[in-house]
Amino acid sequence: MPRGRPEVVPDDGLTTRQRRDRPVFAVHTGDMKGKSTAAFGMALRAWNQGWSIGVFQFVKSAKWRVGEETALRALGALEEGGTVEWHKMGEGWSWTRKQGAESDHAASAREGWAEIKRRLAEQRHDFYVLDEFTYPLRWGWIDVADVVQSIRDRPGRQHVVVTGRNAPAELVEVADLVVEMTKIRHPMDSGQKGQRGIEW
Amino acid sequence: MPRGRPEVVPDDGLTTRQRRDRPVFAVHTGDMKGKSTAAFGMALRAWNQGWSIGVFQFVKSAKWRVGEETALRALGALEEGGTVEWHKMGEGWSWTRKQGAESDHAASAREGWAEIKRRLAEQRHDFYVLDEFTYPLRWGWIDVADVVQSIRDRPGRQHVVVTGRNAPAELVEVADLVVEMTKIRHPMDSGQKGQRGIEW
Repeated sequence: MPRGRPEVVPDDGLTTRQRRDRPVFAVHTGDMKGKSTAAFGMALRAWNQGWSIGVFQFVKSAKWRVGEETALRALGALEEGGTVEWHKMGEGWSWTRKQGAESDHAASAREGWAEIKRRLAEQRHDFYVLDEFTYPLRWGWIDVADVVQSIRDRPGRQHVVVTGRNAPAELVEVADLVVEMTKIRHPMDSGQKGQRGIEW
Repeated sequence: MPRGRPEVVPDDGLTTRQRRDRPVFAVHTGDMKGKSTAAFGMALRAWNQGWSIGVFQFVKSAKWRVGEETALRALGALEEGGTVEWHKMGEGWSWTRKQGAESDHAASAREGWAEIKRRLAEQRHDFYVLDEFTYPLRWGWIDVADVVQSIRDRPGRQHVVVTGRNAPAELVEVADLVVEMTKIRHPMDSGQKGQRGIEW
């Protein structure tokens, strides 16, 4: 974990402290697991800072990430540390009353992004996880240019992590930190299926 | 996250359930961040299963991973979920009384591994994080062959995650799951230093 001297000192007129305190936009992409898992690991640090954490999952299954959700919700409920809001597309976003939302995934995804955009404008959270968010972008459900602009020009000091395979190039372009999770070996290669506690 | 049909069904005489329930040995390596962060993200799932979690950090600084440590200790202290033990080499391993342990890092690292080996034999934990463990292996402080054999032949159903750069090939060889975190872009490239809540 680099805490030493940066390789390049930019000529941007900022002090080291100003530069250090810039909000981070991170993209976790690649074919291998660990993208979301690392984002939720980052959320542990955010929680320890007492930050407001907002998780937005662009997935269908309500069971997805149930381990991480249960753990982070438990942390968010404690007196100490930050707060945690966890919203899932699969069940219909919690801020809407629509139960039939699942019938139109594209509309649900757009609705999710519209809410995130509002929250970014309001500076509602300190740390956002947009989990599996690359898929609705890839599928053309959400306008990539709008996302790029809204994240790039977000006010204040809001950190944003986007996870998912095949992150669009325009998004990678404006990210401060991009990690690619690459597969070297996976248990499924030798016929092992996912298991409780490890995969979910 | 793959929960479907594996690509290959091996001729190993095991049922799918037996194969599924095999303990996993994972290695998170590569030059980029996210290796430890993803391991602690996995610990959230382990906690949600009610598992006994043992974290062993092979690092000098007592402040390293303080966010993750505080959060996981808070989870471990709850009535629900699993238990969390967190041991750090930097302060002298908590099970020893030696205060001068820091003066000989190689000896401390060997002492840490000896304790992990005892715990594996006793099946003390369900989920182990051996954080930054590749370094004492690389530096020749701990015998790689001993580690490979002890992890490969561990009894019962104990999951083990090793993190760190440059994982030795022998270790990668026996791992079920190997992820390489690859750098696409890092804030330090443009002169940004690490910051609170993001890096630690």
